[in-house]
Amino acid sequence: MPHYTAPVQDMTFIMDEVLGLDQHQDLRGFADAPQDLRQAILEGMAQFAQDVLLPLNLPGDQEGCVRHDDGTVTPPKGFAEAYQQMTEAGWTALDSHPDYGGQGLPHVLAQACNEMSSAANMAFAMYPGLTHGAYSALLHHGSDEQKQTYLPKLVSGQWTGTMNLTEPHCGTDLGLLRTKAVPLGDGRYKISGTKIFISAGEHDMAENIIHLVLARIEGAPEGTKGISLFVVPKFMVEPDGSLGARNGVTCGALEHKMGIHANATCVMNYDEATGFLVGEENKGLKAMFTMMNEARLGVAMQGLAQADVAYQNGLIYAKDRLQGRALTGAKNPDGPADPIIVHPDVRRMLMEAKAFVEGARMATFWTTLQLDISEKSNDEKAREKAEDYLGLFTPVLKGYLTDMGFQTCVNMQQVLGGHGYIEEWGMSQFVRDARIAMIYEGANGVQALDLVGRKLGQNGGRAIMSFIAELEAFVAAETSDEMKPYVAGVEVAKANLQQSGMWLMQNGMSNFDNAGAASTDFLHQCGISLLAYMWALQAKAALKGSGDAQFDDAKLKTAAFFMARVLPRVVMHRKVLESGAEPVMALTEDQF
Amino acid sequence: MPHYTAPVQDMTFIMDEVLGLDQHQDLRGFADAPQDLRQAILEGMAQFAQDVLLPLNLPGDQEGCVRHDDGTVTPPKGFAEAYQQMTEAGWTALDSHPDYGGQGLPHVLAQACNEMSSAANMAFAMYPGLTHGAYSALLHHGSDEQKQTYLPKLVSGQWTGTMNLTEPHCGTDLGLLRTKAVPLGDGRYKISGTKIFISAGEHDMAENIIHLVLARIEGAPEGTKGISLFVVPKFMVEPDGSLGARNGVTCGALEHKMGIHANATCVMNYDEATGFLVGEENKGLKAMFTMMNEARLGVAMQGLAQADVAYQNGLIYAKDRLQGRALTGAKNPDGPADPIIVHPDVRRMLMEAKAFVEGARMATFWTTLQLDISEKSNDEKAREKAEDYLGLFTPVLKGYLTDMGFQTCVNMQQVLGGHGYIEEWGMSQFVRDARIAMIYEGANGVQALDLVGRKLGQNGGRAIMSFIAELEAFVAAETSDEMKPYVAGVEVAKANLQQSGMWLMQNGMSNFDNAGAASTDFLHQCGISLLAYMWALQAKAALKGSGDAQFDDAKLKTAAFFMARVLPRVVMHRKVLESGAEPVMALTEDQF
Repeated sequence: MPHYTAPVQDMTFIMDEVLGLDQHQDLRGFADAPQDLRQAILEGMAQFAQDVLLPLNLPGDQEGCVRHDDGTVTPPKGFAEAYQQMTEAGWTALDSHPDYGGQGLPHVLAQACNEMSSAANMAFAMYPGLTHGAYSALLHHGSDEQKQTYLPKLVSGQWTGTMNLTEPHCGTDLGLLRTKAVPLGDGRYKISGTKIFISAGEHDMAENIIHLVLARIEGAPEGTKGISLFVVPKFMVEPDGSLGARNGVTCGALEHKMGIHANATCVMNYDEATGFLVGEENKGLKAMFTMMNEARLGVAMQGLAQADVAYQNGLIYAKDRLQGRALTGAKNPDGPADPIIVHPDVRRMLMEAKAFVEGARMATFWTTLQLDISEKSNDEKAREKAEDYLGLFTPVLKGYLTDMGFQTCVNMQQVLGGHGYIEEWGMSQFVRDARIAMIYEGANGVQALDLVGRKLGQNGGRAIMSFIAELEAFVAAETSDEMKPYVAGVEVAKANLQQSGMWLMQNGMSNFDNAGAASTDFLHQCGISLLAYMWALQAKAALKGSGDAQFDDAKLKTAAFFMARVLPRVVMHRKVLESGAEPVMALTEDQF
Repeated sequence: MPHYTAPVQDMTFIMDEVLGLDQHQDLRGFADAPQDLRQAILEGMAQFAQDVLLPLNLPGDQEGCVRHDDGTVTPPKGFAEAYQQMTEAGWTALDSHPDYGGQGLPHVLAQACNEMSSAANMAFAMYPGLTHGAYSALLHHGSDEQKQTYLPKLVSGQWTGTMNLTEPHCGTDLGLLRTKAVPLGDGRYKISGTKIFISAGEHDMAENIIHLVLARIEGAPEGTKGISLFVVPKFMVEPDGSLGARNGVTCGALEHKMGIHANATCVMNYDEATGFLVGEENKGLKAMFTMMNEARLGVAMQGLAQADVAYQNGLIYAKDRLQGRALTGAKNPDGPADPIIVHPDVRRMLMEAKAFVEGARMATFWTTLQLDISEKSNDEKAREKAEDYLGLFTPVLKGYLTDMGFQTCVNMQQVLGGHGYIEEWGMSQFVRDARIAMIYEGANGVQALDLVGRKLGQNGGRAIMSFIAELEAFVAAETSDEMKPYVAGVEVAKANLQQSGMWLMQNGMSNFDNAGAASTDFLHQCGISLLAYMWALQAKAALKGSGDAQFDDAKLKTAAFFMARVLPRVVMHRKVLESGAEPVMALTEDQF
């Protein structure tokens, strides 16, 4: 069975030594999470992920979910019990609002915990993950009554939540959706239609499931301007909070998927189900985007999480498997062969994985801290800048971390050779599970378009300019000899980012296809550039010393690896995007 | 169900207009395959692939193979009938030697046919594919008696073949293998041991299965110098050619794999099975490499084949699926939305796929033609050069085409969004099936090591130097304005290849880890450089005109796309490899 050791030391290093969370006492709730409490929480979650969630992962993939003839769905053995343990221990309520039973702790701490549960068992972690999304949408857009009715149970995990967007004929283009809502005149609506790809859509792990559903109120305008958001509980909630009648929403079928078999991905049929409007009529997309943005950062983290668990298992195999001799002479002369970690090309894959995982972890924590700042800082300027960064880097991380997370899983599967292709080693599952993260919550191409089409130019390009200014300030401030190699990398990242940004400003507006054709290369360029900065920040902290000399030394060497062997891609991405739309758009449709 | 249209026009273009097969009449058997016959063969195979093999592909993946309690294995429904149809039509005998019932046609023509069967149904095509490998090993290393006994039935397909190398504790490092062979003194040996990952190891599609097995004769030296090759038939063959007793070889279990479910991948138990030595004692590896080299080119083709069928299905979806509007204004104003092929990022993925598939096809045909020349030319110099190219580019194509073939399948799956992740659309299967090609017949890292460690320096670097000279001659000869953009691309490829080659000569010998750390980047650089040349050759033929102006125009535009958006990677690969082994090897094992 695959192994997983939660990366508590690395998480602590990032939070304490690099981000310096203790210097953020001005942020609401941060004072309640001093270093020792954070450590205890991380260690507690580590235990739960390693001991409870991981052992259910491979069996869960093999068993999958079962839909019974009456429409009920049973997740794999052990999932319900593990979920109950998780909610009883309060793991679902870490960063939720104290008004509704949450602990109000920093989002960045919750993100770390989510990474562990997701690494140990991605399909399982999706159940509480989606619940948190539903919680956010209702917290920001629900009425007081809705909040009182649903939030405490979603926070405690007694009920779970879902997001219902996609229909058979529309996914990305929600303007086409047909699910209809007929007002009953008393605040209630009858919702009818079919939704597909609904994660955690039906199961028996919680007493109730709260569906958030996009639908079109009868007579509403066409397109995205006529979409409203509804809350549709599986069981109606009585005024006293108890559960009433079964609502008209059922799971019509389970999807047969490449991976995340243990998550119940459902076709949901709404047959005059009773729903309640969330927020204003026809403003549903805006409310849904609250949920989506949070979810996108969570999906980015999934890419990293799968990469980490795959890396750990690739590493174990590479140290264990004896095959061939080192090119520079036997390293294990008494054994029949050397462990394959001696081979430079195996080590290259492991180093790429390590440089990605630790750089990406730092990037998700750094970006999640922007979420904390944007919500909780008293400083308006700080809030604005944090919001800018959050907007800019959410699509970057969603796209880059899931693309590279998948790639890392594929590389780690490669380390195992034929054993990687066999299901019992678990590497195939990491690859198959990681694959969905590139698709859901907006396919990565949609993230790239969000980046170049919206985020880059917003407020006159304020976000990217303030990031470039931050890189410049860093370069100017870090003048020590020891920091030189890392600062040089940041300079390369910055210079190329400036050039690509300029090219997009000059060419993307005059011909939108130039922006579209450049979008994925630019997204990857931004992702690598951010990670280069993250690695330079980690190198700085490592040079100061974390108290573990071996750990610090490894950080510096991994940072150097990133600069030497990953960073050169930014130049390639810039060159490619500067070739513009013409080569991409030249063929007629018939010529393909 | 997924669609497949065999690319007969493109194959004909490459054979007739680019490679000019009719100018190779000096090669044995080429005169027997004039244009009209080649066309008829390609069209016949296209029909068989589309009408018979494709419909079995998705059901075969879902049904998989079944092992019964008595050790027999049943492939999916329809496979046995399709196999019989295939052998009866003579499709397995195209390029086999006429002395044993083969048709003696050009390998390049057989390769084209193999591409079609592999694209339509990779798991199916592996059964005859492995048979052909066994045929080759026996043809080159078997005794006359062995040839007479086995080859006619392998050529006709009445019997199938396997390769038995891997054991639980050894794959790449065959020096470790333990399967033992005890001589009986009468030319027979008793073979005992366990082999794993044996493709097509057991099934009921053919009367007999001829296993080629690596084993160690009692008392043989340790390591690779003590390995011999044996032929072990499932059923003993009587002197009159009829089948005799069941031999002591059985399928102990089927492997549970990520993909190629319809191919029976077996654990094979040899329990004092009767085997016959092939070639000399302790020279088994050399004989097995005959089989492996041929197989590697076949595996490279599998990468391309899966990419093509995935591309075709991604394209159909992109033209069909209505979602969003073109950035430059509606292209389908009367419809509810535009087809997603209007979006530059979708088109980018399709163009990358097209540029890869057609470039890779040309590269496999060009390299397979080298095989024909190396075997069949009367000109010694020509044979030598062809052998050099074959040696150099076999690992390049195996590594680059399977890496990129998989990547292309992943991108095409991405075009379908959520539908790509659902098994019934078939895109997941293309991804899962393509994944194995990066692993088997020598994992791609092993190909990279073969390239930098053996092929590059062989005969003083003669192969790469003659390739660089060929590129130089091309650049010097092609001075027309029309050819400029493509020639410029070839120059970039050539210059960077020279630099990387030089760097490896200077740094790879003094420190072998430099070569190992550079190997995968260099392999990809070689792959892209070869494809750049292939595209320039295609552009030249398209400028001359193939008789289909639209087709020729598409070739020129796709060549331009390749130069603008794929070729820049060679600079990145060169920069990365020039950073040397130090960043890759810096960590101690404990620091990972």
